[in-house]
Amino acid sequence: MIIDCHGHYTTSPRQHEAWRQEQIAAHKEGRAAPNRPAISDDEIRASIEGGQLKLQQERGTDVTIFSPRAAGMGHHLGDASTSEAWAAACNELIHRVCTLFPRNFIGVCMLPQSAGVSPKNCIAELERCVNEYGFVGCNLNPDPSGGYWQDPPLGDRYWYPLYEKMVELDVPAMIHVSMACNPAFHTTGSHYLNGDTAAFNQCMTSNLFKDFPTLKFIIPHGGGAVPYHWGRFRGLAQDMKLPPLPELLLHNVFFDTCVYHLPGQELLAKVIPAENILFASEMIGAVRGIDPETGHAFDDTKRYVEQLPLSAADKQKVYEGNARRVYPRLSARLG
Amino acid sequence: MIIDCHGHYTTSPRQHEAWRQEQIAAHKEGRAAPNRPAISDDEIRASIEGGQLKLQQERGTDVTIFSPRAAGMGHHLGDASTSEAWAAACNELIHRVCTLFPRNFIGVCMLPQSAGVSPKNCIAELERCVNEYGFVGCNLNPDPSGGYWQDPPLGDRYWYPLYEKMVELDVPAMIHVSMACNPAFHTTGSHYLNGDTAAFNQCMTSNLFKDFPTLKFIIPHGGGAVPYHWGRFRGLAQDMKLPPLPELLLHNVFFDTCVYHLPGQELLAKVIPAENILFASEMIGAVRGIDPETGHAFDDTKRYVEQLPLSAADKQKVYEGNARRVYPRLSARLG
Repeated sequence: MIIDCHGHYTTSPRQHEAWRQEQIAAHKEGRAAPNRPAISDDEIRASIEGGQLKLQQERGTDVTIFSPRAAGMGHHLGDASTSEAWAAACNELIHRVCTLFPRNFIGVCMLPQSAGVSPKNCIAELERCVNEYGFVGCNLNPDPSGGYWQDPPLGDRYWYPLYEKMVELDVPAMIHVSMACNPAFHTTGSHYLNGDTAAFNQCMTSNLFKDFPTLKFIIPHGGGAVPYHWGRFRGLAQDMKLPPLPELLLHNVFFDTCVYHLPGQELLAKVIPAENILFASEMIGAVRGIDPETGHAFDDTKRYVEQLPLSAADKQKVYEGNARRVYPRLSARLG
Repeated sequence: MIIDCHGHYTTSPRQHEAWRQEQIAAHKEGRAAPNRPAISDDEIRASIEGGQLKLQQERGTDVTIFSPRAAGMGHHLGDASTSEAWAAACNELIHRVCTLFPRNFIGVCMLPQSAGVSPKNCIAELERCVNEYGFVGCNLNPDPSGGYWQDPPLGDRYWYPLYEKMVELDVPAMIHVSMACNPAFHTTGSHYLNGDTAAFNQCMTSNLFKDFPTLKFIIPHGGGAVPYHWGRFRGLAQDMKLPPLPELLLHNVFFDTCVYHLPGQELLAKVIPAENILFASEMIGAVRGIDPETGHAFDDTKRYVEQLPLSAADKQKVYEGNARRVYPRLSARLG
């Protein structure tokens, strides 16, 4: 079985994102948001059958751990109440996809974060998504300000109430920023990758996993800059008198394979233990074209993983075993 | 000849950094800064002979392009007048090092930047350092706020007056952030690497090199996350209908080899043309320990470069030829 641990609903029916525009416009003008639009099952089916499901079949992957569009989370927009309503709408839509295509999609929720608002705010929605929808994880945005980095780092006790609930529910978080509203950053270029690198550093320089030994984070996009600079991080940890990185972090931190060329994937597999790599593509996402050097989609990451010098056992871990371990609720859904 | 294009004066005599503390304290209290401390040639000699020069000799490199301590630039501290005085003090010290050890160190200046203050402010110091001190380049901080990213991106016309002067003087800039004052970031971990990645993106999504076809930037620390995600950037450029990255950026953007393990260096040399890689170590800098996996200093980057499958001609470019091309004033100094 090939589990893609990183997919977002980037092809949701048009009225869903249109409602978000209306919601934020209404908030700005101090009006109540309009009612949420009707979205039929057929519209959802069409958006999936012509998109994610088609690519799953073409590429030979089996199931996608599926969450709302990451750039669309927009935690810097509106306030806590708009975030709450938007997260509820997005997560419900994911639940409908997973209900319509139970063999192909397993849900992960976005959280109703807002810059400067305690993550306690997110607990009810996380519980609802896990307990009522059967979701297996959440996406946690380390920078709800959208590129101004105004919330405390992930190792701060500010985030602990959410971690307590994650541990209780036995769900991991993918650490994933949303749209950059800071003109210094390109959302899917620098902001995503910088969020990954910052998150890893925040974990490295904190007591987070001493305090929460079973908490698990997936750092997407191949871990940002981290594997490429693994020597730098090993050296920084050593200079800080910290334990070696495998002991310090690799029981809790995992990297996905959203790296869109073979040399990057080779590096990832060379420096990060196979136990800490989860197969992922983030299709249909940041990069949608065909690589003229290969003739295949940049984000068809299975083609790269197939070429890696991994043993069959390690490849099984990357494709399936690690995902089942990192998302403990997954096996109950998949069988 | 082996030219290390990235060294900072991290071992400067103690009274230099002590004065900076006094200067900022005085600024906070609205007092005039004290006079700058006396620093003897012998003190400078000792700080270099026991530090950078010793390592040059041990590691077999010939000359270092040398600039003030990057984390110490602190453009977020004080105001335009404190930055001006501090940059003058730091650059003067670099000039004294280069005068005492003319075969081993060639100067690059820091700029008197301040968050929110026009880079026009930096022109006089750049001119002074190039024309009076014989410096061959400058370090340009893309985020003088120290991790809050409040200045316009590098492609913005905001920076153009400085670029005009750089082009006129025929000097490149290394794009290098300073200390992070934002608790979200670790200075030498995430902030440096994120600055590199952001800078590359800012160049990619701007008309900068159309407007300044001879402007040259060195992105340090192996280009942050960029080479590891070269496929992502190629794909993003293609989706944006931009020319291929070599055409779009590689006449103007260069990467150094400050990557502190062999797998990262191998990746760099595999995806970035040899013409765009400049040898560098950033010793004595971010990572100061011995890698237990190799028994050698993490930042002894020459050991990695020696192991790369580069032709002798390409290695010569990385060690010397590219530096002479990117820093056109270098050959006048080196002969």
